[in-house]
Formats: sequence, structure tokens, C-alpha cells
Amino acid sequence: MGCEKMIPGYMGKILKVDLIKRKIESFSLDAKDAKDFIGGSGLGAKFLHEYTDAKINAFDSENALIFMTGPLAATKAFSGDRFEVVTKSPLTNCYAEASCGGQWGGMLKRTGYDGIIITGKSNSPVYLHINNEHVDIVDAGELWGKDTFQTNQILKNNISKDIEIACIGQGGENLVRFAGIHTQDIHSRMAARAGVGAVMGSKKLKAIAVFGDNKPPIFDEEGFQKFWKEYSKKVASTFDAKDMRDNGTVGSLLYCETVGDLPIKNWSMRRFAGAENISGSAVKEILTKKYYCGSCLVGCGRTVNVPDGRFMTNGPVGGMEYETVAMVGSNLLINDIKAVSKINELCNRFGIDTISTGSVLAMAMECHENNLLSTDDLDGIDLKWGDADAVIEILHKIAHREGIGNLLAEGTRRIASEIGSYAAEFAVHVKGLELPAHDPRAKNSLAISYATSNRGACHLSAFGYDFEHLCSSPELGVPEPLDRFETKGKPAYVARMENIMSMCDSLSTCKFMLFCAISLPQLVQELELITGFGLDVGDFLKTGERIFNLKRMYNNKCGISRKDDTLPPRILNLKRGTGADEDQLPPLNIMLEEYYKLRGWNEIGFVSLEKIKELGLERFLK
Amino acid sequence: MGCEKMIPGYMGKILKVDLIKRKIESFSLDAKDAKDFIGGSGLGAKFLHEYTDAKINAFDSENALIFMTGPLAATKAFSGDRFEVVTKSPLTNCYAEASCGGQWGGMLKRTGYDGIIITGKSNSPVYLHINNEHVDIVDAGELWGKDTFQTNQILKNNISKDIEIACIGQGGENLVRFAGIHTQDIHSRMAARAGVGAVMGSKKLKAIAVFGDNKPPIFDEEGFQKFWKEYSKKVASTFDAKDMRDNGTVGSLLYCETVGDLPIKNWSMRRFAGAENISGSAVKEILTKKYYCGSCLVGCGRTVNVPDGRFMTNGPVGGMEYETVAMVGSNLLINDIKAVSKINELCNRFGIDTISTGSVLAMAMECHENNLLSTDDLDGIDLKWGDADAVIEILHKIAHREGIGNLLAEGTRRIASEIGSYAAEFAVHVKGLELPAHDPRAKNSLAISYATSNRGACHLSAFGYDFEHLCSSPELGVPEPLDRFETKGKPAYVARMENIMSMCDSLSTCKFMLFCAISLPQLVQELELITGFGLDVGDFLKTGERIFNLKRMYNNKCGISRKDDTLPPRILNLKRGTGADEDQLPPLNIMLEEYYKLRGWNEIGFVSLEKIKELGLERFLK
Repeated sequence: MGCEKMIPGYMGKILKVDLIKRKIESFSLDAKDAKDFIGGSGLGAKFLHEYTDAKINAFDSENALIFMTGPLAATKAFSGDRFEVVTKSPLTNCYAEASCGGQWGGMLKRTGYDGIIITGKSNSPVYLHINNEHVDIVDAGELWGKDTFQTNQILKNNISKDIEIACIGQGGENLVRFAGIHTQDIHSRMAARAGVGAVMGSKKLKAIAVFGDNKPPIFDEEGFQKFWKEYSKKVASTFDAKDMRDNGTVGSLLYCETVGDLPIKNWSMRRFAGAENISGSAVKEILTKKYYCGSCLVGCGRTVNVPDGRFMTNGPVGGMEYETVAMVGSNLLINDIKAVSKINELCNRFGIDTISTGSVLAMAMECHENNLLSTDDLDGIDLKWGDADAVIEILHKIAHREGIGNLLAEGTRRIASEIGSYAAEFAVHVKGLELPAHDPRAKNSLAISYATSNRGACHLSAFGYDFEHLCSSPELGVPEPLDRFETKGKPAYVARMENIMSMCDSLSTCKFMLFCAISLPQLVQELELITGFGLDVGDFLKTGERIFNLKRMYNNKCGISRKDDTLPPRILNLKRGTGADEDQLPPLNIMLEEYYKLRGWNEIGFVSLEKIKELGLERFLK
Repeated sequence: MGCEKMIPGYMGKILKVDLIKRKIESFSLDAKDAKDFIGGSGLGAKFLHEYTDAKINAFDSENALIFMTGPLAATKAFSGDRFEVVTKSPLTNCYAEASCGGQWGGMLKRTGYDGIIITGKSNSPVYLHINNEHVDIVDAGELWGKDTFQTNQILKNNISKDIEIACIGQGGENLVRFAGIHTQDIHSRMAARAGVGAVMGSKKLKAIAVFGDNKPPIFDEEGFQKFWKEYSKKVASTFDAKDMRDNGTVGSLLYCETVGDLPIKNWSMRRFAGAENISGSAVKEILTKKYYCGSCLVGCGRTVNVPDGRFMTNGPVGGMEYETVAMVGSNLLINDIKAVSKINELCNRFGIDTISTGSVLAMAMECHENNLLSTDDLDGIDLKWGDADAVIEILHKIAHREGIGNLLAEGTRRIASEIGSYAAEFAVHVKGLELPAHDPRAKNSLAISYATSNRGACHLSAFGYDFEHLCSSPELGVPEPLDRFETKGKPAYVARMENIMSMCDSLSTCKFMLFCAISLPQLVQELELITGFGLDVGDFLKTGERIFNLKRMYNNKCGISRKDDTLPPRILNLKRGTGADEDQLPPLNIMLEEYYKLRGWNEIGFVSLEKIKELGLERFLK
């Protein structure tokens, strides 16, 4: 690698694999692209524009499946070893990204590639084996049909314990539209959302096994080491880091229930008597270990073990995130943490998104309750609220597209359209992506961010709900916690947070760092020490704005417009009670109007030509 | 007819025609049904429940096409000769009704039948000939392909000048989903909305020719005559009657433009420089005559003549209503009243609804402007805003489903789904029925009534927009004009008005009477004198509530629920400017919440069992 090509913070090469031609090549990363789009989903979105016509079907051979790390990966920058998967989504028919922690991202970068662009479809199951810069397409006949835990184990047995594996389970193989891509063995870190695993399945790509021992160049090695030393203690010892280490993300469940942020019975109820039974303290009873992603000093991951009973795990398995416990727990009226743990384990094994799965199951239960899906339609399963055994039966069917599972594997939007009648009342999604476990009726900023997030209903695209109510962060421009039911200022708040989070997803780093001493100025400093891009806070935010709009432009090409920037009827219309905050509904349209103006989008939600020029994105207009 | 069977105000018999079996029969009207559902669309909705499974396709042979008069018809009660057509709509896939003035309704009732229920499909074109109680199904081969004016003329020539004819034009024949049923020769009164003409076309029923010289019994003949004498002068001489007689409904166009009620450029603009050119005074320049429907003392109908030029009419033709001028004038940026007159004439000849037609054309123009429909897609027609010649070319194609017309004949909802992408931004409908020419951004009550009207976006289902802002009517419970941008009290106001209007559509009488001395107490009195039902104002409103909910129950069976009670994105989201009332958006969800409670509907918009029992509608649950 000649010095003139070196880009600090990057390996400088992108791997490109065409599975139909079995062609493996690589190309140099352009230094200006690196500065303009950073990495992760920023560069991913750029490549998606270039490699995937917005008009195609997500399962077409032409769809590109893009795995990208960022400049922080493999540098020991705090929680910077994440990777992003970018593709056209089979769930939303528009831009998809899914982010994943664990160790795989850091290991991919150490192979010498910043990312992989996969196009074409193989005729038979294969996996990719990347050993430093050496790449093989290998037959995966024996892996096909195996779950993600089994796939990990077989590949490690066959190749080496030192490899890291990203793979799909039966969900991805069977094109379940909300299948994800799973990593980390039993610890289950997953690029879960928007059906990226189904695209991988459509390409008959079972896994990507990576091993590398390269290191990226760092712009100011000495400065970075100093920075790391100074901040590593701070990161580990902040209140929030300790809280997450002690309680995991599920530690917030009771708070969420208190303020009305928790989904209960498919988003129809305000209080859940069983909340205590699925809270952080309930998880503690089956906890065996904490789990740290690559370069993480927090350790919010859990490992749990249920040694006996009908929800017995076979040894320790990855523990439950808040989103999972809420979506397959309270949202289904399941109040047994062991049952939730089993459902979580199965979703991980099958490689399907727990958020969408929970939403699909809740919709199926409500359709059943309202005679839109009979017990016969459900293959004889009387799918009642709170019935974990019935849920487990259905889960197997979804992952294998058997019987009713073939319909449920389509996601809530398509289920509604297939069942017809008033089933759409029970489909809780935006743009086809099911809502994660935070309720816009509890916090106004969520209404705007769900409506405008590029991949559909996403809580991480703006990630503003905690700063809106619970925390303050002068560094992020929130000196005091905000009034959650105020509308004024919220559009600007959400747009700014979306720009910041676009940067986090491009870096790509864990957003929890923002609570743990690595706030905006530190992130900018960290990036500067690693890359020497010379970006100040203003440039950093502008780059985030560029990336957010680049994704929106892809969506516009897919036909996404203002009509799609909305919320499900249930969230817009249904009050969950009377009095206190129970009758709150999000005043979306008023806020959206202002948001569009701030964004520089035209009246139907297309990025305006002026804004495109200002951000230097003309070439993506096509 | 034995005295024991006589129901004052009614002929007491319903004609039933099965076109596939060619079976003609009749049955006696039940006296309790008459009291509970009155007539018009009230009895029509009852028969629809009984004869048409909500699950069928509107074009299935099983769909019933129901023509109903009310107890006022053929009695000389003020403007009581209207009739209603009730069916399952091919445009909305749910409950449809369309109301029509003219003379046909009064004449139908004089045949001895209060209404007609038509089921089945003929194999070849036929028309019905009803001469008093004698009914024939007659071959209509020579009529098929003829426009409505021609069909009228041929049938009158062949049968008698004294018959009244309801028929379809090429629009209905070709299953244009917004085709109507036309009456009154060149004067063009039409049961226009929701595709009732397409259902008639699907049955290959070209026309219904009626003649009769019977009279319905009247409960208190003497009292009724006295009432009529007392009120006839008042009706004719009220300010509103004189205004409508002088200016027609189009007389309100400039007022509508002033307050932001007028649709301009597919509902995207707030001001129209050409308004003056298509206003009431512009119509006066081509006016030849005023037209009075049966038993009307107002005469708001117009007849116009354009003697020369490229928009020349062939002799006098029915003049333009406000809705028409707005939807095919300002909404298309056409500012030439002669062009509007020609478009109106063609719609009447083809037998297609001018409201939906205008909305479809505006959508096509905006799709063209935004490259979603190329000139090639449009069969070489460069369909630009304001281009009346291009509109006229397209109109022929729609009526005959030729080329692009085959797509446009499907209505805005289906056009959007066919074109995909962001075309739905330009589709301005509720439940598939295109918005009439009143803007919910100008008056909050319209937001609720468009969202909840049983046939989709309808201005007449609540007909509250004038009383909301312009007029007061203590009799209707509006002692002072209301603040149009207030939300408080609006749900109750709309629900009450919907109940009243349900009665008007059942009686079935012209709603303009409410401005012209025949307000609520007089209507109740008139009905009582004719029928002796013994209903007071409270019973009258309760009956209206029963009928409104009976229709909603049919919609619920069709799968209509809260998800469908919404407004198009353009109306919910798009501000038409900044300042004054230009940035007003209707706060629908807040109002809808209260409306549901007042209606006794459950959280997903189904009529609750309690309400169904209260109204005695259990038997329609099925």
C-alpha cells in the first residue's frame, strides 16, 4: 500500500463480491468519499445509490448487500467496532440499514477491507471466507437449514476458533422479511432490522467468516493514545455506564411503563400489571454474565441461563435487550421472564428481528381476538394474549414459512393487505417497518423521528427520546431535559439529533457512548485524532446532514414521499385512557410542517435541489 | 290495496327485478321499516344489508342496485321528489349512495313503487320500462354506446314524451368507477357519486324509463295543504332562495376562494387569479334559463348555451354547479367558463361524476408535471395545467377506457396504486371517493365529516360547512355562526348534522330547504302531516342516528374502520402559504377522538354493541 493512497483510520480497500459470476475483486476507497461519507451507513448509502437501482425488487439479484465498518473500528476507539449493513429492504421497499455490535466489525476491518459489497445471487448455498485479504466463496450445503448458533459452531470447528462469523438462520434462508444477520455465537448481536438477513438469504449466502490481523493507520497515534487513556476511566465510571453494566438496557423497562413509553397489548393499553416480572430485576435472577462488544468499556450485554422447566435454555444464551422484552413480553401480555428468554433465544437462533416479530405476533393475536384470523387459519393454534407456548409454536412456523407462518413472515404491512378488512388497525409500522418499543404518545420527538427515519419506524435514527425527557446534555444542545409533550422546538431538535446519529452510524460507534463521557465534542476529537480530516463540530454536523439526506434521496427514488412520513392509525388516534398523560396523542402534522422547512425538503417531502446542491449531492440525483 | 296495509306517504310496494333470471316481482313495504328507516338512503341501506353481502365485489352479479324515493315524493312537499341510489361502490368497496334531483323520483313513485331493487346481470343490454305498475325488461341494443342526451331522446321518441328516464352514458357502460346515473335530458340531474352508474353498467342496464299517474295517500291531507300554502311563499321568498335562484350554486365561488374553501391546482394553492372568470357572474353571460327540480320553488338549476367557438354547445345544456366549476375549473387552473361548460356537458353526456373527474384530471396533470406520467403514457397528450383542450381529449378516453383513459377511469386511489412511487401525494380522496370542492383546511367541521361520511369524502353527509361559518340556524342548533378554526364542539356539531342529513337523504328532500324556511321543525311537521308517524324532533334525530349507524355497520362489514377515517396527506399536511388562514391544517385526530365517543363507536371505529342495541339494529349484525 503506497503512502500516497493511505487514508488514516481506513484500510483503504473495499471488497466486492459478485455471487452469480463468482467474481472477487476490490477497489480503493476514495479519500474524499471517506471524508464526505465517513463509513458505516454513510458510505453504505453512497454505495447503495451506485450499485442498486431504486426501482428493483429487494430480492432481485441486482440488489447490493453492503457491510461497512467505520474509521473507529479496529482502533480501540470506544465501542467503535460496530458494523452496518445497508441494502434495499424487502420489508419497506426502500433504504435499509441495520447496525450490529459484537466483534465481527473490528475483525472484518483487520482483514484489510473497510467493507464488502455483495451483488448477484448464488445458485446454491455458499459462505464467504475472508482470511486477511484472501477471499474464498465456499460451498455451504451442510450449513443450510442450521440455526445461527449451530452455524457458528460448525464454522469455528471447521476453520478456527479465532474467526468471527456473521450468518443467517432459517429466517433469512426462508426470506422472512424481517430476518436479520447474526453474530457472536450464543451472545447474539444482530443486524436485525428491515430484513437485511432476508436479502442475504435471497443471495444464498449463509455466512461470512472473517479473520485478520492488520491494523488501520492512525493520524495522530500519540494523541489518540493520550485521549484514550484520559477518557477510558471516565467512560467506565459514568453513572449511565454503571447503570447499563448493572442492569442492561432492560433496566429501563419500569421507567418506560411509568411514563407510557412501553408497548402493552399491541400498543393498546397504558398499564401492565406484569411489568415487574419482566423488568431488569427479573432478568437478574437468570443472569450468568455481562457481555462487552469490541472496544466497549460499558458491558450492557447480558448472558442468561434457564436451567430447567419448559422454557429451559441449553446452557447460557445471549440475554434480553429492553426492545425484546417489551416487544415479545408486555406487547404480547407475556409476564414470565423465562418465557421471554426462550422466545428471544429462538428469534436469535432463527435469525429474526425480535422487534418486528413481537409486532407481528401482537397483530396476529389481535386479529385472532377479532375473528380476522380463526384458529383454523392459525393451523389449529389458539393464539391468545399472554400464551407463550402458542407463540413458540408460531415462531417455528414463521422461521420456516410453514402454514400461517408463510403469511406472518411477510410483516405487518403485508399481513394487513392480505387479510384486508380492518386488519390494518392492528398493523403498527411506519413505511412497513414495525415500531420499536418506544411510544410517540409518550414523547413528541418520537412522532417526528418515526415518521422521518429513513428505514421506517426507528428509535435510533434520532435517538432523542431519552434526552427529551430523562437526561440533559449541553454538548448535544440539550441543557435541560425537555417537556415531552411540547411541540415547539421539537422539529429542530429531531433534525439535529438525526444528523448526529447519522454520524454515529457512519463512524460507526455505539450511541450509548453519548451518555458515557464521549459526547459530541469528544466524538469529533476522536475522529480527528484517528483520521485528521480536520472537521470541527460544525463540519461534523454538516456531514451528518449530508448523509441523512443522501439516504432520503435514495428513498425519494423509491417513491417515498410525504404520504409515507406518517404514523400508524393506532398511534395517531388511540388514546389509552383519560387523564394525566393517558389521553395524549402526538400532534404530528404541525411538527412535520416545520421539520420539512428546516430540512429543506419540498412540499411532498423530496430533498430540494437547493439542499442537494448545498450538500454536494448532485451526482446522486442520477 | 286494503286499508289495513296502507302506509300514508308511501305507495307501499317495492319492485324487485332480477336481471339474470329476468324475474320481476314486488313486495309490500313493512310499516315499521318505513317508520324506522323512512325511505331514500335509509330504506336503501336496509335493503343493501339484506340483499348484498358486504364481501362481494361491486361488479359481481349479486350486488344490488337500489333506487329509492321517500315519503315526500309525489306529494308536492317542498323539493321532495329526489331519489337515492344505494349500492356497494366499485370506487370505495363500501357503502355507496348517490342522490338526484329532477323529476324522475316523483315519477317513479307515481308508478306505484316506492323503490326498485335490481340484482343480477343481464347478458345483453336492456332497459327497464315501468308504466304504472306494469314492468318490462326491454332490449337496449340500439341504445348501447349512446350518450345520456341521445338515450333520453331516443327513448322519448320511441315511447312517449311524458316518460322520465334515468340512464347511463358511455362512462357507466365502460365501468368507469366514478360513473353516475343521469336524468332530465339536457338539464342533467345526476346521481353522480361513488360509481353507482358503473354498477348499472355492470348489469348491462342502460336505462329505467318510468311513467305513472298514481298518488300516495297522505295522513292529514287538509293539514298538509294548509302547511304547503303557508310555507310556499316563505320558501320562495327567503334571501337564500332568491340568491340561489339568481346566481345558482356557483354564486358562492368567490366567497369560497376568499375563505380558502376552493380547490386550486389539485388543492395545492390558496389563491386563483382566474376566479372571477368562472364565477357566478361569468355563468350569467351564457345563461339561458333557470331549472327547477320536481316540487321545487327555488330553482337553483341553470341552463346555458355557448353558441360558437371551440367550446360551442349544441343548443342549451344543463348549467354548472359550484362543485363542477371548482373541480374542473380552478382545480385544473382552467379560467374560461366556456371551457368549463364544455367539460361539464361532456361529463353529463358520458355520465361521469364531475367531482371525481376533476380530481382525476388534476392528479394526472400533477403526475405529468412531476414525470410520473410522461406524454407517451398520456397517449401523446401534453396534459398541462389549464389546458382545456387536452382535458377534453382525455375525457373521451376516460369514458371509453381508451389508452390512458383505462387507468384514469379507475379513480385516484387505484391510479396511485398503479403508478406507485409518490403518486399517492396527488390522490385527494377519502376511502377512495375524491374530495368535493370544499377544503377542510378552511373549516374544521369538514375534516370530521369527510373522514366519517359513509360513502367517503362527502360534503353533503353533514353539510355543515355553511352553517359553521356563514349562516346561523337556531332551529338546527346553531344560534350563531361558528368559529371555523375552533375544534371544541365540532365533533358534536358534525354528528348532529350527520343525523339530520341522514333524514334529508331518507325523506328524500333537497338540503337547500334548510336555508329556505323549511328547517328542522318544519321538516318534522311536514313528515308528520304526510305520514302520521308521530315523530317529534327528538325521534326524528334518533331516526337519523339509526340510519347513519346502519350505513356505518355496512361499512364495518366491508372492513371499514378507524384506519379509513382519515384525510389525504395533502389536506392533513400541506399548508398553502404563511399567515392569515393560509397555514391552517385541520387537527383531525383530536376531533375524531371525541367524535367516536359521541357516536358510541369502539376504539377501532366499529359501532358498539350497546349502540346497536340502543338503535334496534341487532338484526343487521348478521
